[in-house]
Amino acid sequence: MGRIFKITTFGESHGKALGVVIDGLPSGLIISEDDIFFELKYRRPGGIYTSTRKEEDYPIILSGIFNGKTTGMPISIIIENKDPKSIHYEEIKYKPRPGHADITYIEKYGYENWDYRGGGRSSGRETVSRVAAGAIAKKLLLLTDTIVAGYIKKAGTFNVDNTPEFNEILCSRDSPVRTIRNKEGELMKLIETLRKEGDSIGGIVEVVVKNPPKSLGEPVFDKLKADLAKSILSIPGVVGFEYGIGFDSYKFKGSEVMDEIYYDEKFRLRKNISGGILGGISTGEDIILRVAFKPTSSIAKEQKTIDLRDLKPTNLSIIGRHDPCIAIRGVSVVESMVAITLIDHYMLSGIIPRKLSKEQADIIEKRWSEYKQKCI
Amino acid sequence: MGRIFKITTFGESHGKALGVVIDGLPSGLIISEDDIFFELKYRRPGGIYTSTRKEEDYPIILSGIFNGKTTGMPISIIIENKDPKSIHYEEIKYKPRPGHADITYIEKYGYENWDYRGGGRSSGRETVSRVAAGAIAKKLLLLTDTIVAGYIKKAGTFNVDNTPEFNEILCSRDSPVRTIRNKEGELMKLIETLRKEGDSIGGIVEVVVKNPPKSLGEPVFDKLKADLAKSILSIPGVVGFEYGIGFDSYKFKGSEVMDEIYYDEKFRLRKNISGGILGGISTGEDIILRVAFKPTSSIAKEQKTIDLRDLKPTNLSIIGRHDPCIAIRGVSVVESMVAITLIDHYMLSGIIPRKLSKEQADIIEKRWSEYKQKCI
Amino acid sequence: MGRIFKITTFGESHGKALGVVIDGLPSGLIISEDDIFFELKYRRPGGIYTSTRKEEDYPIILSGIFNGKTTGMPISIIIENKDPKSIHYEEIKYKPRPGHADITYIEKYGYENWDYRGGGRSSGRETVSRVAAGAIAKKLLLLTDTIVAGYIKKAGTFNVDNTPEFNEILCSRDSPVRTIRNKEGELMKLIETLRKEGDSIGGIVEVVVKNPPKSLGEPVFDKLKADLAKSILSIPGVVGFEYGIGFDSYKFKGSEVMDEIYYDEKFRLRKNISGGILGGISTGEDIILRVAFKPTSSIAKEQKTIDLRDLKPTNLSIIGRHDPCIAIRGVSVVESMVAITLIDHYMLSGIIPRKLSKEQADIIEKRWSEYKQKCI
Amino acid sequence: MGRIFKITTFGESHGKALGVVIDGLPSGLIISEDDIFFELKYRRPGGIYTSTRKEEDYPIILSGIFNGKTTGMPISIIIENKDPKSIHYEEIKYKPRPGHADITYIEKYGYENWDYRGGGRSSGRETVSRVAAGAIAKKLLLLTDTIVAGYIKKAGTFNVDNTPEFNEILCSRDSPVRTIRNKEGELMKLIETLRKEGDSIGGIVEVVVKNPPKSLGEPVFDKLKADLAKSILSIPGVVGFEYGIGFDSYKFKGSEVMDEIYYDEKFRLRKNISGGILGGISTGEDIILRVAFKPTSSIAKEQKTIDLRDLKPTNLSIIGRHDPCIAIRGVSVVESMVAITLIDHYMLSGIIPRKLSKEQADIIEKRWSEYKQKCI
Repeated sequence: MGRIFKITTFGESHGKALGVVIDGLPSGLIISEDDIFFELKYRRPGGIYTSTRKEEDYPIILSGIFNGKTTGMPISIIIENKDPKSIHYEEIKYKPRPGHADITYIEKYGYENWDYRGGGRSSGRETVSRVAAGAIAKKLLLLTDTIVAGYIKKAGTFNVDNTPEFNEILCSRDSPVRTIRNKEGELMKLIETLRKEGDSIGGIVEVVVKNPPKSLGEPVFDKLKADLAKSILSIPGVVGFEYGIGFDSYKFKGSEVMDEIYYDEKFRLRKNISGGILGGISTGEDIILRVAFKPTSSIAKEQKTIDLRDLKPTNLSIIGRHDPCIAIRGVSVVESMVAITLIDHYMLSGIIPRKLSKEQADIIEKRWSEYKQKCI
Repeated sequence: MGRIFKITTFGESHGKALGVVIDGLPSGLIISEDDIFFELKYRRPGGIYTSTRKEEDYPIILSGIFNGKTTGMPISIIIENKDPKSIHYEEIKYKPRPGHADITYIEKYGYENWDYRGGGRSSGRETVSRVAAGAIAKKLLLLTDTIVAGYIKKAGTFNVDNTPEFNEILCSRDSPVRTIRNKEGELMKLIETLRKEGDSIGGIVEVVVKNPPKSLGEPVFDKLKADLAKSILSIPGVVGFEYGIGFDSYKFKGSEVMDEIYYDEKFRLRKNISGGILGGISTGEDIILRVAFKPTSSIAKEQKTIDLRDLKPTNLSIIGRHDPCIAIRGVSVVESMVAITLIDHYMLSGIIPRKLSKEQADIIEKRWSEYKQKCI
Repeated sequence: MGRIFKITTFGESHGKALGVVIDGLPSGLIISEDDIFFELKYRRPGGIYTSTRKEEDYPIILSGIFNGKTTGMPISIIIENKDPKSIHYEEIKYKPRPGHADITYIEKYGYENWDYRGGGRSSGRETVSRVAAGAIAKKLLLLTDTIVAGYIKKAGTFNVDNTPEFNEILCSRDSPVRTIRNKEGELMKLIETLRKEGDSIGGIVEVVVKNPPKSLGEPVFDKLKADLAKSILSIPGVVGFEYGIGFDSYKFKGSEVMDEIYYDEKFRLRKNISGGILGGISTGEDIILRVAFKPTSSIAKEQKTIDLRDLKPTNLSIIGRHDPCIAIRGVSVVESMVAITLIDHYMLSGIIPRKLSKEQADIIEKRWSEYKQKCI
Repeated sequence: MGRIFKITTFGESHGKALGVVIDGLPSGLIISEDDIFFELKYRRPGGIYTSTRKEEDYPIILSGIFNGKTTGMPISIIIENKDPKSIHYEEIKYKPRPGHADITYIEKYGYENWDYRGGGRSSGRETVSRVAAGAIAKKLLLLTDTIVAGYIKKAGTFNVDNTPEFNEILCSRDSPVRTIRNKEGELMKLIETLRKEGDSIGGIVEVVVKNPPKSLGEPVFDKLKADLAKSILSIPGVVGFEYGIGFDSYKFKGSEVMDEIYYDEKFRLRKNISGGILGGISTGEDIILRVAFKPTSSIAKEQKTIDLRDLKPTNLSIIGRHDPCIAIRGVSVVESMVAITLIDHYMLSGIIPRKLSKEQADIIEKRWSEYKQKCI
């Protein structure tokens, strides 16, 4: 994925390790394993509000860094699997889980080649690779003082009206349910109820890119909105993407969503109705997008499926450790995919050079330190 | 765009011609200019319900066909511009149109290099290239008896509940407002009113892929849903993509959207809640997706912008010939992008060979003939 | 082909037109059809030393240029076929030509889909698209004052020792046999003899890139040498590529080809033994490479093949209009592929911006004018 | 690198580990770490004829294999660095080595970001990743009974006339100098002399692909010869590629290299002068290609360079452990890149399916066992 900033991921839920190779980074960027871990923590399972699987997820950098800085060569990062409980999956070996990739993998790759343990490659655990790469992308975005942050906007009856202040969105990273702090109680209660019921819920994540550069995106097929859509729809569990007015568009007349162009040292848009993108190219206004996650398919409630040994109907209730609302962990993943997509376009546009100067690296380091301390 | 079935487009609204180069087609497929024109007709402006610009849009094939069949070499198709009225655009030369790509193109490529005539490359007219390529993709899909068809589901107060029968959807192609025939009167009335008011409206297009092959899509980044999202978001005016339950996902509990797996000669899903795609790979059930188009930005009502000569505020009302609801013409374009994406995955999966046998070509020809005669 | 500067070609020897779509150009570059024609003349058949097929080959630009300058949108160029003599090819319809792509195309795409007229897509005429794109690449290279020029170094007993002065190489473009002027008589005589005999000869082309930027090339797979090799080996008739010491390497000890590094305002190499590339990345010294072309396979002398109607042996002597030494016309084509490859790496490296300033465009225009007048 | 069968490599000479991610493999292929190690042994340093660095190079598979078979998901392989002696490289920290990537890396990525230890990423050690991927490609090629094997054809005065029997070429893998066994003594003597002198020599590797499938290769830019050229020129130290008659082409008239087409159950060529490729597409005859390696640049003899601290001239003699003739270890690497390129085209052509049947996997396993036991 990507043209200049390219990522390749590998690894299964219950294999030795997951990982990512990141190619095309400029040289001179200061990167440590702690930097990556900082972001990984925000998607890490733990706590009653997400899965109870315990993985420290501390990343190991195998290449591409010398004396603490990027050399311009590919960075390879692995995250070891330390707490897989494959025993939970012996039942599903014969019972494909509704709503999961089990039947499509079995069809495409063959039952005999199917890694059924935890969903194998189709597990949500695959996203740890994305967040590791996203951490580096997010740090590099600070060169233009650009920050990507998201939160849970909707889940069941829970709803955050309008788009909150950016700081509120950013600080949702410390919320156990990844929503704005002054509304988190409501969502926590919903999640607790669902966990007790052995049920799950879908959710909408909203992401805001603060202070993005203008002129990102190519005119026709590689529009910024198209590349964002692809990278986000590649996330497990995502069933929709929109930006700006999105799926409410049918409710509006053109005259209602007219957005005045004015000039204030640069071209500006009065209401940013287009969500930061016009003609597929960033306007410089905040990019605002929303992502729909389906309800977690793994639920404790009884589901109907077949037994692969006789192709007869059977029942299944899934015992593993799962999130009642995958959208919660999805926030970090969407942020990461947005950051990765932006960096690729940055580099295509020549905004970020192939070699950072010491001054650029220091600016990033200073902003990174501030970014980490926000919300405390 | 694409990995094996690759398309490259070119051309501006008011240039000499628009066109597309299609590479990676199997040899042996029967293709004529009439085949392409058959589909182009369905996006052609004309009639009071879309733009009144008159373009015959008859395509000229320059290469890749010999004795009426594909040779396996790139097919180049051009469509000449015969009715551009650039005079309409002298005003916007200095007044970037709100909601259009004008300001992003000016910023990215320079004001002095900006082809302001009809939006240049960012014009909706660019989509003629997509529909020309889509015609060939749609024809080739008939090898597996797969048909892609869409219709207007929502626009303002207009709403088609549930997903209609596939035949109703297909026959919307003959409706002047591209919706199901027994509801078209309502939409026509809405469009007429908007035209009189000099206003426009957004809309939702729903597309159904009937009888798609299973096993299309790669596991992680090149998921079928991701590639569909990218190709669809690359269409001008599209602000959202969803499939299956989509943005309604937050309303549902996992237990409410459980979808029984059963076996009836092949794996089947009882309710097809996942919209034909699980784990990013097609299940073989119908693929169901929806696309949000924003209201046409070009409206006769007065809009606020700046005059580029002095950067001062000014007013603009757009006189050109425009569609009150671009979603209407968007139906063909979305269908085309879906078909193009599917063919690329077909070929990646080895389902469609690089060389069609005479028998395969004849089956396609027969089905194409039936397809064209449907709805008459 | 390409990552930022991308070209797509189409067209057959005896179809309506050949063409190329060039995507990823910066905006603001002044380009006219005459600019492209200037380079096309140098590969144009005509005269007794190359094929006697007469094609004016005047290019038509369909898109991407507005007010004489690039807009940043794809440029589409077509060259019409005006003098095809398909009648010559009725015999080979059943007799695949030895040394040509006939049998591989028949096998891969099917006999019934094979465009046998003039070799169809596999004709050397396909290279007109490459030279059209190469003209634009060459012009853009002038931004860094970089010039690509080649000449015939070897053909049969003809041999140019050492690498001549760059000006001598550049001015070979006016030689009817594309070699240095003070040796052209020898090669003209050889070609005349071969034409009379109905025979052909192989040849070695040497290309020098004067004043290339340093730092072009990626470290591992997309090394500059690797991309040059691919683009050059994609030319019909090319059977070898080397740079620097190339295939003479086995004759040398390391101590004999040591090349002192010194500093004279920048890193320099005393002898440029590595041909301008070290570790796959350009050093800034002249890039020197050589390309082997096989003897033209189409000769008037009798050749042994089979008759496809009965698969029995038969004889064939080819009457069409062909070059006794395809390397001669190959010089322009190799230069073009080198220029195209360099521009892609320029843009990847951010050396050439996505938008040229007026000053940059004017510098290029001035240098282009000088470049055209050289050698007169 | 690659379109369906894609490889991504990472790692430096003196970092924690090198590795490769291989994506696009069919499911169902039996692969073990021993299979990969079998091929890695043939490039492994050790013995006086190559570098004396000791690395066991036993590979660790992190993903993509379940129950001993490929799942269709990316395979990640790492090879740890156990015997780096970075101490040797403290001198070159300030003295860029002539003939190496040192100066181009310093220029492109910045001196302060340069991993000078053992050449970092530009080290020949990088090729261990290629051979690991090549092992899998070679095994998969056995599905069509295709074998890739090479040997040292020329190095200084050493020369193997003509192309030997395929079995002789294959069994060169057990020669300490990777040439045919009945001539290895001569080359061993040459290498010993060079080692004593602290000098090195260039070399020519010839590779034969026995029994390749026909119809591999695309018509224009992605010709098989072009993709082979790119993948081979991406190898460190390679300065030339040719196939068929290659750089001897200028010596031949067309009439001398005419190659009769005949029919014997399939199209055949009498002399295979075109080296297995016509029009860029494989003919089904053996593919024969040659690769030029430059003399190892790291020699014990004194070389002239600059001291980066004062940019003044200085001398350098390189003490590390290096191969007198890198072409020797290059044989395995070239074989690997050829195998990798072929597999990508196999999969593009649909010859190798995305899912192997048990029968196909068993045939491969049987042939692999035979392949390993050859030459013993």
